[in-house]
Amino acid sequence: MLFHGLSAFPITPCDADGRVDTGALSKLLKRIDTAGADSIGLLGSTGSYMYLSRAEKRRAIETASYCLGGSTPVIAGVGALRTDEAVALARDAQDAGAQGLLLAPVSYTPLGDDEVFAHFSAVAAATQLPLCIYNNPGTTHFSISQTLLSRLSAIPNIAAVKNPGLPAADIGAAHEAAVSAVPDGFSVGYSGDWLAADAILAGGATWYSVVAGTLPEPSVKLMRAAQAGNRPEVARINGLFEPLWALFRELSSYRTVHAIANLLDLSPHDPPRPTLPLSQQDQLRVKAALDVLAAV
Amino acid sequence: MLFHGLSAFPITPCDADGRVDTGALSKLLKRIDTAGADSIGLLGSTGSYMYLSRAEKRRAIETASYCLGGSTPVIAGVGALRTDEAVALARDAQDAGAQGLLLAPVSYTPLGDDEVFAHFSAVAAATQLPLCIYNNPGTTHFSISQTLLSRLSAIPNIAAVKNPGLPAADIGAAHEAAVSAVPDGFSVGYSGDWLAADAILAGGATWYSVVAGTLPEPSVKLMRAAQAGNRPEVARINGLFEPLWALFRELSSYRTVHAIANLLDLSPHDPPRPTLPLSQQDQLRVKAALDVLAAV
Repeated sequence: MLFHGLSAFPITPCDADGRVDTGALSKLLKRIDTAGADSIGLLGSTGSYMYLSRAEKRRAIETASYCLGGSTPVIAGVGALRTDEAVALARDAQDAGAQGLLLAPVSYTPLGDDEVFAHFSAVAAATQLPLCIYNNPGTTHFSISQTLLSRLSAIPNIAAVKNPGLPAADIGAAHEAAVSAVPDGFSVGYSGDWLAADAILAGGATWYSVVAGTLPEPSVKLMRAAQAGNRPEVARINGLFEPLWALFRELSSYRTVHAIANLLDLSPHDPPRPTLPLSQQDQLRVKAALDVLAAV
Repeated sequence: MLFHGLSAFPITPCDADGRVDTGALSKLLKRIDTAGADSIGLLGSTGSYMYLSRAEKRRAIETASYCLGGSTPVIAGVGALRTDEAVALARDAQDAGAQGLLLAPVSYTPLGDDEVFAHFSAVAAATQLPLCIYNNPGTTHFSISQTLLSRLSAIPNIAAVKNPGLPAADIGAAHEAAVSAVPDGFSVGYSGDWLAADAILAGGATWYSVVAGTLPEPSVKLMRAAQAGNRPEVARINGLFEPLWALFRELSSYRTVHAIANLLDLSPHDPPRPTLPLSQQDQLRVKAALDVLAAV
């Protein structure tokens, strides 16, 4: 049941040289733990995994193991451009105490299905940890087809997929198709915060959530309403989130949650360059969206 | 005149652990030098720059400086996801003896124009070397607009752009538009080997060539015919290249030139995983395309 429920993806606060601020990270992790999320997605795209060194990624996982003591399980992102590097990151994650792995088919030279299959096979075989396929075409520029998902789901240790969310009108059929491509018990979950509640209502196992990494309390409420099938309550909470969802769509969730962490004094750091922090004007819009959310 | 004429992009032969085979690299570099290319594009996409460590990239440039002794100038790729890393690579390249830099707006988190502008400004300011903008949307997933090109071309040290080629019917107008967006003397050149001769005939300053890194002799002949405006000779040579261009389009130029280097005993190495070497069957097709090329 690792890949189930609300998985909260915090930012990884770090200084301009890419050194992780373990104090700020611990504060974020404890907030998530206290709010009752089901797992923590450490070093996801939101956690800047592609911008951190191997040593700093290991420090981040060790920090999580130390400050959480296992009370909320940690799923660690281990994506890398080179297969041997992703294998090494997976071993590091297991050694540092992670309970699961998240692997994206990161690419520079565009990859084919057989290449992605071999890459995932090598990483899955490197540890005993269960692994979630991180299907994120918006950043990796590789889309995992139903056929490839079916092949990957037969690899031992590969236990879940994190798919991008879809509009409410499309998610039901897409979820059925994904579930029919994988073995019983294989977890099919979703990212895309503003689409996630609909994905859960349609039967999705997991909400892989950017916003829950920084604002875990209202996110847990939204998730529990969706899991209970309480559509009026989902609509009410989603309505209060909508100003923030609009900023996520316009400015990216990545830049926006970094600004939220600054505004709430959770982290003094900017995202790694070349990503720029939000302008003062956009920060005021984020602040206004947070004020609306207070009613959740 | 660094960003002018035929710039040949060799593969970077390296072992399965990502260690550069300096002997094989030297052999490739000397072939290019002997054939009379105008520059060498070291550590381009063809040279696996995103798959090599900082130390190995420096070793590759030092190898080129040592074995070429400046007889063919070296343009070194310094793209990286982090701005501070790209700055460090630029300094390394200057220290190791490169004559110019090539910078791609590599991205994971999708970037905006202001972010790319700040990134290029920081790297350009890090050395005295002239820099070429590497506009390669197929791998970076960022397209440099005419407006951004115009802004970037005003930065001191930024002296050239490497644009993707276009079909013969479109390249004339596109080249005029690019030239009108930049100062006099700014070099507008092209990649995309099967489209390059048309781009040169349309006035392009430079052919940034994958094939010339491994097959420099016929590439020099094609380039000189295009520079001379000899359309019948361009058509004749391009016709002999066509079986290879077809494989570049189908299998990628990156995979194909790695196979050529194997077939010609220039390198015993495969591309870095997850990229897989070509199948035996596809290698036979590459061999057949090389046989046709012998008539150039």
